[in-house]
Order: sequence, then C-alpha cells, then structure tokens
Amino acid sequence: MKMMDVRSDTVTVPTEEMRKAMAECPVGDDVYGDDPTVNELERTAAEILGKEAALFFPSGTQCNQAAIMSWTNRGNEIIVSDMAHIYEHEVGAVAVLSGANMRTLHFKDGIPDCGQIERAIRGEDIHCPETALICLENALANGRAVPVENMRQIYEMAGRHGIPVHMDGARCFNAAVALKVDVKEITQYVDSVSCCLSKGLCAPIGSVLAGKKELIAKARKNRKLLGGGMRQAGVLAAPGLIAIREMPKRLHFDHENARYLAEGLNKIPGIHCEKDAVQINMVFFRIDREEEIRKGLPSWLLQRGIKTNPEDGGLFRMVTNAGVEREDIDVILELLKEYLA
Amino acid sequence: MKMMDVRSDTVTVPTEEMRKAMAECPVGDDVYGDDPTVNELERTAAEILGKEAALFFPSGTQCNQAAIMSWTNRGNEIIVSDMAHIYEHEVGAVAVLSGANMRTLHFKDGIPDCGQIERAIRGEDIHCPETALICLENALANGRAVPVENMRQIYEMAGRHGIPVHMDGARCFNAAVALKVDVKEITQYVDSVSCCLSKGLCAPIGSVLAGKKELIAKARKNRKLLGGGMRQAGVLAAPGLIAIREMPKRLHFDHENARYLAEGLNKIPGIHCEKDAVQINMVFFRIDREEEIRKGLPSWLLQRGIKTNPEDGGLFRMVTNAGVEREDIDVILELLKEYLA
Amino acid sequence: MKMMDVRSDTVTVPTEEMRKAMAECPVGDDVYGDDPTVNELERTAAEILGKEAALFFPSGTQCNQAAIMSWTNRGNEIIVSDMAHIYEHEVGAVAVLSGANMRTLHFKDGIPDCGQIERAIRGEDIHCPETALICLENALANGRAVPVENMRQIYEMAGRHGIPVHMDGARCFNAAVALKVDVKEITQYVDSVSCCLSKGLCAPIGSVLAGKKELIAKARKNRKLLGGGMRQAGVLAAPGLIAIREMPKRLHFDHENARYLAEGLNKIPGIHCEKDAVQINMVFFRIDREEEIRKGLPSWLLQRGIKTNPEDGGLFRMVTNAGVEREDIDVILELLKEYLA
Amino acid sequence: MKMMDVRSDTVTVPTEEMRKAMAECPVGDDVYGDDPTVNELERTAAEILGKEAALFFPSGTQCNQAAIMSWTNRGNEIIVSDMAHIYEHEVGAVAVLSGANMRTLHFKDGIPDCGQIERAIRGEDIHCPETALICLENALANGRAVPVENMRQIYEMAGRHGIPVHMDGARCFNAAVALKVDVKEITQYVDSVSCCLSKGLCAPIGSVLAGKKELIAKARKNRKLLGGGMRQAGVLAAPGLIAIREMPKRLHFDHENARYLAEGLNKIPGIHCEKDAVQINMVFFRIDREEEIRKGLPSWLLQRGIKTNPEDGGLFRMVTNAGVEREDIDVILELLKEYLA
Repeated sequence: MKMMDVRSDTVTVPTEEMRKAMAECPVGDDVYGDDPTVNELERTAAEILGKEAALFFPSGTQCNQAAIMSWTNRGNEIIVSDMAHIYEHEVGAVAVLSGANMRTLHFKDGIPDCGQIERAIRGEDIHCPETALICLENALANGRAVPVENMRQIYEMAGRHGIPVHMDGARCFNAAVALKVDVKEITQYVDSVSCCLSKGLCAPIGSVLAGKKELIAKARKNRKLLGGGMRQAGVLAAPGLIAIREMPKRLHFDHENARYLAEGLNKIPGIHCEKDAVQINMVFFRIDREEEIRKGLPSWLLQRGIKTNPEDGGLFRMVTNAGVEREDIDVILELLKEYLA
Repeated sequence: MKMMDVRSDTVTVPTEEMRKAMAECPVGDDVYGDDPTVNELERTAAEILGKEAALFFPSGTQCNQAAIMSWTNRGNEIIVSDMAHIYEHEVGAVAVLSGANMRTLHFKDGIPDCGQIERAIRGEDIHCPETALICLENALANGRAVPVENMRQIYEMAGRHGIPVHMDGARCFNAAVALKVDVKEITQYVDSVSCCLSKGLCAPIGSVLAGKKELIAKARKNRKLLGGGMRQAGVLAAPGLIAIREMPKRLHFDHENARYLAEGLNKIPGIHCEKDAVQINMVFFRIDREEEIRKGLPSWLLQRGIKTNPEDGGLFRMVTNAGVEREDIDVILELLKEYLA
Repeated sequence: MKMMDVRSDTVTVPTEEMRKAMAECPVGDDVYGDDPTVNELERTAAEILGKEAALFFPSGTQCNQAAIMSWTNRGNEIIVSDMAHIYEHEVGAVAVLSGANMRTLHFKDGIPDCGQIERAIRGEDIHCPETALICLENALANGRAVPVENMRQIYEMAGRHGIPVHMDGARCFNAAVALKVDVKEITQYVDSVSCCLSKGLCAPIGSVLAGKKELIAKARKNRKLLGGGMRQAGVLAAPGLIAIREMPKRLHFDHENARYLAEGLNKIPGIHCEKDAVQINMVFFRIDREEEIRKGLPSWLLQRGIKTNPEDGGLFRMVTNAGVEREDIDVILELLKEYLA
Repeated sequence: MKMMDVRSDTVTVPTEEMRKAMAECPVGDDVYGDDPTVNELERTAAEILGKEAALFFPSGTQCNQAAIMSWTNRGNEIIVSDMAHIYEHEVGAVAVLSGANMRTLHFKDGIPDCGQIERAIRGEDIHCPETALICLENALANGRAVPVENMRQIYEMAGRHGIPVHMDGARCFNAAVALKVDVKEITQYVDSVSCCLSKGLCAPIGSVLAGKKELIAKARKNRKLLGGGMRQAGVLAAPGLIAIREMPKRLHFDHENARYLAEGLNKIPGIHCEKDAVQINMVFFRIDREEEIRKGLPSWLLQRGIKTNPEDGGLFRMVTNAGVEREDIDVILELLKEYLA
C-alpha cells in the first residue's frame, strides 16, 4: 500500500537531485564563513527575494525569532495576527528570546488590515511598551494569500511611523503563485522576510532570512546565540539551492490539486469546504456528522494509507504537496465518500 | 480657587490621621523582617482579604508582576483580558520579568467569560507554551464590577485544569461595595490578589499581595529582585493600615457621587453616559461635538480649577475620589453646561 | 536595656526632623510628575552629585538595576567586581531584568584595576556578547574607598572604548568623607551613580540615580516597568531631602567610631582587625577561637542588647551608624573582652 | 598545494561513507517524530553515553543551552568554569535564554575542584539566586582531560546538595581516549551530557544531549522554542550515526599526532610547549619572539597551505584532526623552523 501524507507540506522528502547534491557539494566551516555552498545559497536567496543579504537557518521558527530579536530591544512590543505562526506555533518564544510582548490583532479571514494595525501602535506613554515591529505572514496558514495592495498600504503606514515590517514568508512562493506575481512584488513591501526551503519546496531542512546587510549581521549573531551556527552546513545548503531555484515552479500543481480536492469534497454529502479560501495548497473543510464519526476518520484513513490530522477547531485540514498526485486526490475523495456513506 | 482632580483616584492625598501615623509609628529594617508596622499591615491585610499571608509592595504594578513571576516559569503563557491593567498599563513587563506570553481575550463589557477562558487554555502541544495562570481584574477599569458568580465559575474551571487564578484587585474594595458583599466573598475565588492602598483608600504609596504562605515566600524573593525590598517601610505601612482598615467604609460616597455625576451628565445636551456601566467611582461619557471642542475641554476646565484627562478612544473619563464632594460635582456639571452651550 | 544594632547602617531610623517633614510636606501624584517634594529632591540630588538629572527609587537594588537596564540591550555583558553588591546581593537580577551577563573580576582588596578591566572588554567576535557597561562601587562593601585616581583612569579608558561607567554609590558620601573630597570629585568619573538615602544618611526608604537627562528618561520608564513608580512619593522624598542635604555632615562620626572600635578590638587577645582597611564605617575582624565560641557570640551579645551578624567567610562585621555613640563602642569592647576571657 | 587546516577540529569534513549515508538514508518529519534515522541516532547515542534518552541538535551551543534551560528556572544561578565554552563562546546566551546568572570559578589548569565548587553554592539568603546547576566540561578547551575521580567527587557532592550536573562533552570521546576509559565511565558522573558529532568525529553538523527521559522531554520543547526542531533531519542523523559509532576509534591518531607535534615544537629554538598539557588533540605553544614575528606567522603559513589561528592570550593553538596526517605535522614543523630561523 502506497502511503500518502496530507498532514502538512512539511512532510515532503528531498528529491533525488537534492540527495545527489548533498553527497557531492563542496563544504567548509560556516562559522568561519568558509562554506562555499552556504555562501552561494545566501547570495541566491537574497537575489531571488530582492534583498541585500540573506542568512541560512536550521528552521523557520529560528529564522523568525532571530529576525524579531534583531529588530527589537528588551521590553518592546510587536504587532502580530492572532493566527500567526509566530504567535501560535513558536512556543511563546518571543517573550523568552526577545523579552518582547506580542500585541495580537484579530483580522477578518486573517487578512491584515492597515487601519487596525495603525490603531494598535502605542503612543508615547510611560505605561506602555514601544511598538518596534509589525509582523505579517504571507501566505496565511488558513490557505489564503494576502493581496499585494494590503502589503503596500501597511508598509507605507509603518514607514510613516518609523516601524519596520517583518514577513513570515514560510510559504511566500505559494503566495506569489496564488497572487500571480514574482515573489519580489510581495517582498518589496517588507524590511525582512523569512522563507522556508522545506515545506512545498522539498528541501530536507532549513529557512532563509533576507533583508538589509546590517540586519543580517545582527541576525547572524543572534543565530549563534540561539545555537543555529552550523559547521559544514553546505550539505543542507546544497538541497536548499535546488529548492529555492527550481521548486517554486512546481507549486502550482499543489494549488491545482488543492482546488480539485476542494471541488470534490463539496460534492460529498455532509462535507462543506469554503472554496474561495483555497488559494494555495491547503484545504479546510467541515464534516457535519456526529463527533464519534469525525474523531474516527484519521485512524480509518491511516489504515488505508492516508496520514491526516484530527479535526481542530471544527475543521479538518488537508495539505497537498510534492508527494501527492492528482490520482491520490481521487483516492482520498473515494475513501471519504465510503466512510461517510 | 479650589483645585479639583478627577483624572483618577490615584491622586488622593494621605489624610491627617495617616500623616500622624507616619510621624509616630514604630519602624525597623523590613529586609531583616524587623519592622513591626509592616508586619502588622501584612497580618491585617491577609485577614481582611481572607488569605494565609500578605506582602507589602511599593506599587500595584510590582505587586501584580511579582505575583506573575511567582506563579510562572520562563516560557509559560498567562491568560488576561485585552483591557487589563497588566496588559495595557504595566509597560509590557510580563515578557521582560517573567519571560511569559500574554494570551489576551476580548470580553463583552470586559466581564470575563468562563467558556472563552477555558477555550484559550493550551493543550499538550510541542508548538505551544504551557498555560500557567489566569489573571482577572475586579473592579474593572471600565467602571464595572465582575459578578461573584463569574469569579466562582472561572475559579472552579481553572481548578479542574490545575491552573491558578490571580486577581488584580487594585480596586477590590470598590468591587465589594458595588457587589454589596464582603471583599472575602470575591477573593475566595482567586489564589492570589493584589490590592491597592493608594487610589480610593488614600494611602500615599503601596499595595499588598495576599495568598498562600508558599506563594508569598516566592513573591518576597521576587520583590527583592525587582528592588521592592524597602528598609523602614513602616512609615508607609502605617498609613496603609488606616487605608485598609478604615477607608473602604467611605468608598460608597465616591460611588454615589459617580452616579450623581452620570445622571447630571445625561441631562446636558450633547453628552451621553452609559449609566448602567457606572458601578464604582468611574464615569465614562461621550461628547457629540466637533473634535476641536472635545480637544479644548481639558484646558478650559483646568483654567477653572478642574484637572481632567483628554478624550481617549472616543470617551472622556472622570473618577470621583476622596478629594471630590457632592457640591464639586455640581460645579463640574455647571461648567460642562457652560462650555457646551 | 538600650538596644544597639551594628549589623548594618541600613538599620538606622528616620530622625525627628525627618518624621516631621513626612507629616508636613506637600505631595502630588508622582506618576503624573505632580509631586513637588519629589521634584525638589531630584533637582537637589542632581546638583549635589554633579549630574544633569536624578530619579528617586524605592531601593538601591532597583536604582542599580534600572541603570543597568537603561545602559544595556538584551544579550550584552557588563563588567563587575566579584564582591560587588550588584553581583552578590541583588538576587541575580541582571540576567532576569536585563538579559545581560555579568563578567566578574577579582580585584586585590576590591580596588578596581584599570588594566584588568580593559583586558576583560570583549573584542569583535561572533562567539562573544558585547561589553556594554562597567560597574564600579564606591565605597566598597569591604570598608575601603576607591581612590579618585583609579576612578579617573577607568573612566578615561572606558571612554576610549565607548563604554559607559556606572557606580553603585550606595555609600558614595562615606567614600567622599574617607577620601576627603567633595562627592562630585568622585562622581565626575562616572556616567551614572546610584546613591542610598537610607543607610548612614538615615532616611527610611529610597535611593537616587543621577546622570544625563537621556539616561534618566530611560530609567524612568524602566522604573515603571519594575513597579517603582510610586504615587504620593513626597512623603519619602521629604526625609530624603534632609538625608542628602544634612546627613553627609555626620558620617565622619561613624568613621571615627569605626576606627576607635578597630583600635579597641586589636587590644583584645584573640581578635585581629586589619586597621588600614577601616576607611568608612565598617569594621571587619577575625576571632582566633574555636568555632563553637565564634558561633555563640551573636546570641550572647543579643542577650546583652547588641544586634550583630554571625561570622561570614571567617570574618565578623560591625557597622557603625547614627544609632551608635562612642560610649556604645566601649560597651561592645568590654563585652567582647568578657566573652573571650 | 594541499591545504591543511589546524585551526580547529570543527573544520573536519564528512567522510565518503557519511556522504553516501546522507544520500541514501530513510527520512521523515522529525517534528512529528517520524524520522527513523533520527530515532536510531537518538537511541544509539543514549546507549553509548549510558543514559535513558538522547536528543539531536543542530549545534553544541544549542545542546548546552537547551540543557541549561531545562535544568533551571528564571532567576537561578549556575556554576561554571571561567574558561568554559558555555561562558566564553556561547554569546552570553545563558542570561538571554535562561534568565540565569553564571557564577564563574577559576580552576588551576581548568581542572574543576570539588571544594571550590561546594563553597560557591549559594545558601538560603533572600539576597541570592538559587544555585540550580553545576556545569563541567570534559575534555577541556585547554587540551586537558578531567580525571574521572574529580567527576565522581563533584557528582557526589552535588547530589548531597540536590544540584544536578551537566557536562559539556563536546569532546567527551577525546576525554575517554585520553583517560583510557569507556566514555560511560565519565558520563556516569553527570546528569546530562552534550556530545559533538562534528569536530573530531567528522559529521557535518550536530550534537546530541543525553540524560533521563524527563529531562530530554523538557529539552525537546526548549529545542523547539530555540528553533532547533528540524524536519527531515535524518540527512544529518545518518552521518551522525557513523560519527558516534565509528569515529571515536580514530581519535587516538589525532592525540598521537598532537603529542608528536608538541615534541617537535619543543625542539625548535624559541618555541615552548607545555607537553604535559597535551592530552587530547590540542597543542598550545608560546613563541618567544618579537610581536611582529608572532603576528606575521598565520599569513606566512597560509601562503604555504596551512590555516592556523593568530596568537591569543600569548599562546598559539594547533588542533590535529581527521584532515591532518603524520607527514603533515612534519611539514608544519619544518615551516616553523624556517620561519623562526
């Protein structure tokens, strides 16, 4: 039985070409700046993301957190969506690592609203921390891409307040595909961006942070403090190079598969999927059945070769990725029909 | 011209009796535990608040923060209202001092909802910080008191999750007066409570934290770390004793004055005050006039002997206190009529 | 029986004049900047210490820690003596509050050596935190005053490296008396200085921090975060004003008493006191007797009306203060003779 | 010209076998616990180091810091040598990440002394942080191994005080070789140990932490917070497995080469090397020549194919490693003779 994994796009495995690159790439001690493959990846990522410089990290969490440490001082406040990865899935790291408070905003559909953000900026008041950073995310974890126009408005408003903007761009290439723009169209409206090489781009490990040289120098020191200074990191940079150069081209397949899945789901009695929200590779849906049936689904699917997450907050999530073909979607749809029948 | 100050109840000055007590009380070095007046205040506060032990602090902010430090470990999360003093007016201290994240909830009218709180408790998940504390506030800074029944529900729910409850009771005696209960009826439903001796109770400086002995021992060490270990603190504990023993009896005057003010305001064309929200000594009201007029009000009143805050978030706030008599309210109402005419 | 307390000079109680001042001083809400007595104390302290501005704190610990927070960013390093109050008696607060590391140096007799300090400044190295502050102390807790020339050398060297110097001057007036200079001769060689109003100066509570306006503005915000923002703080500033204006004039009595005590101690068989080290109001001595006898001394003295500390690190310490007269020293010496006979 | 790198053993590159393993190993998403190669490495490391469980990290710094976070609470103190990697080369991370203070001790030759450590443990005192951890290191960065007997004494003393012991065992296999014992003989006397797979063991990236299950569970969460949770980490675990299983067998060559180098150095006029200190793969030596000659050495050697560090604190350091053969040592010795002649 072929296993299929739609829990996330983090489960993708390196391609054959990536494996080969790992085995053959030149390496050096990156703490000394001696690893040519890391240096090439950092140059390449900076160029693709339209920034002066870039830095390789072992994870997206460290990438975001090092950026936040580099933009803030102890006691500052950052503005962030209440559904952001930084707020929900990074273990409350901002308080521990940066000594900063997260001021969370709730946005309709997760799409950041410039006016809401501006009102959340703290004025001069001895009772209040200083607002030091605005954190955006694109694409969002709810499957939507933030329009470029929203990015632009927020960036310009932030500039008027002298506040930098960081973007968690773990899936920024998905956003670019969804918005039908070059990724630089998006990243031009942020001061720093993190970008995941794993997930849909299939590298085994790693993220890059891109921004101005001065920021990247600070982030390098903070990365060392966080224990992200690695030695012969070229073995990870080599597949990372393939990921960032070649793999964005394949993301549209994931998106098409996601839409195909969404359409199929809506044809199954008892399943409701908001199709308009399916803008990248994520499909959220509701099953209108008793709790027992909903709880039983993941293990029933697992026995039939499909790894999927349990219901969370009333919704199931399936994520298409490089390991999922069009015919796999058909299998999933057939099984769901069978299960709910 | 008599000056009147309705900016806050923090502006109250010590009574004659308090001044006399400061001048005459026995003192000692409280860092050695040698100050008899401090010891008496701490015993008295514990008894009045219905807890095992209490500890004197130079401010309510330090009182709350030391409690949070004592209940949490680095990397934990606390649940708190998005209008709480802890979140809005303590300089983002939780991240700096406790290394903890504040998970903020928005409650209708600020009244904490047990279900909302329970849903915000984090499950076992490597991506999430552990929920270590629920912070309530009573009375609220919007002028309302939280019903005892809400307190009870939340305390029992928290107990089922093994999570302690702290209450910022800066105005807990105002809450008790508003709810027509002994303050212990409220504090029985929390594991620790801070209580301000300044504000409506008129002591010049200081707050007390009350809770179990073990917590208070931790808080004592955290107070030292925060620089709140004072020497001959009896000179502050002496007025504090009068404040906590005698002054709660006078709070009902402030509340009556507040309601009297609210009723008078509603009779003035262009002013709107939500009367039901006036449960303690705080009156919030809207003035339906052009911005220029609204902006000009505080300085116009100041020239006529009344200190008041500028509009904030579309509302004016006036706080009755020991320096404000019934006839002062009449003066304010007359002046407002004149200004808006 | 008259009680005598030589455990520390922190045990001094406010004078009659101070009590009167507390009872009569004008006050206001210092968080609004409205307390005239606090404002007068801060102006006066700045002038006496030769700095642009000053700020009142509830304790010396908070004064030092707020200064350190204001001079450093998260992740910096400060250089400090291994016998400094900041290192030994402030509960490890630097790591918690500032997120900074203390690089401790061991100085001969505690006198800071410019060369040692310069060698401890970190170079540009990704493995190392940035050196952001040098902390001195004068007078020292071992009873010595640091010569002005050492202060000058260190200040000039620090300036060449662009590193500010903070001085824990809890007993800076004792240092000035010992060095026979105006206190400004000492404080001219530091960028910020904390000064205790309690201890030998007899105020019940409080310290002041002095430095440039910009630093004091930062310290004010950090004080708020630490919960040191007090309301009608004039009641403490009033005795503080007497302390800083009048009480330095009486410190030479404590110093003379300390030397008188040291001389007397050296005449008692079995007691050894290094007389040259008695430069302020602190006397350290060794008793060459069995442990049981040494352990028994404090309680034996207590029964005879004298509060003293147990032996610590092989030494007893007695501290002369405003509550100790010349004839009290004679009583102590007689009792020690009796005990050891 | 063949390049030779004696700056450190961190410069070693992965072996052919490791490259092959990276290209062929099975992988999964380690954040879900799904990577079979990571799981095998963690089981294997636990067994070899004699502990219940182990955890893979992207660096030794993160390994040590996650251990310290897991053993301490905010505001604690840890005891550590003033030449420890944790103190000197981890960017002051302890204060930022753990909010803990490092109490540094200076040991003769770096060998930890049980008595000194015991005296540094803080007693019950409200002025002092709690001592929560003792950090050792073996082998030391000065080229010495700590005798097992010292480890035992310290571990037993620590146990009497209820304080855990962590060992930075970045080069614990070098220590085992130097002490002629199985590594478990050393690690039995610590509660947790970090071990580097890179350095002399040649893996490209990574360290492991070993200890009790409960500690490792905490460390796993702290690793996530630090951004060390990696996805298809099997690609690093595969060479790591070879490193920990096979490579300790080759360390004795590095040690022999180091001693051979030391002997050769001592035959060159003007060079002094303390031979007894050469216990692992590190050789420290002094060159008694003018500064200009000492400063010029690294670039002169670099032009002849040898990468080496500049003098630091009066000493040159050369580190033998898998890229350095016996005949390479002869080349180095000849060049040094030529340069100094």
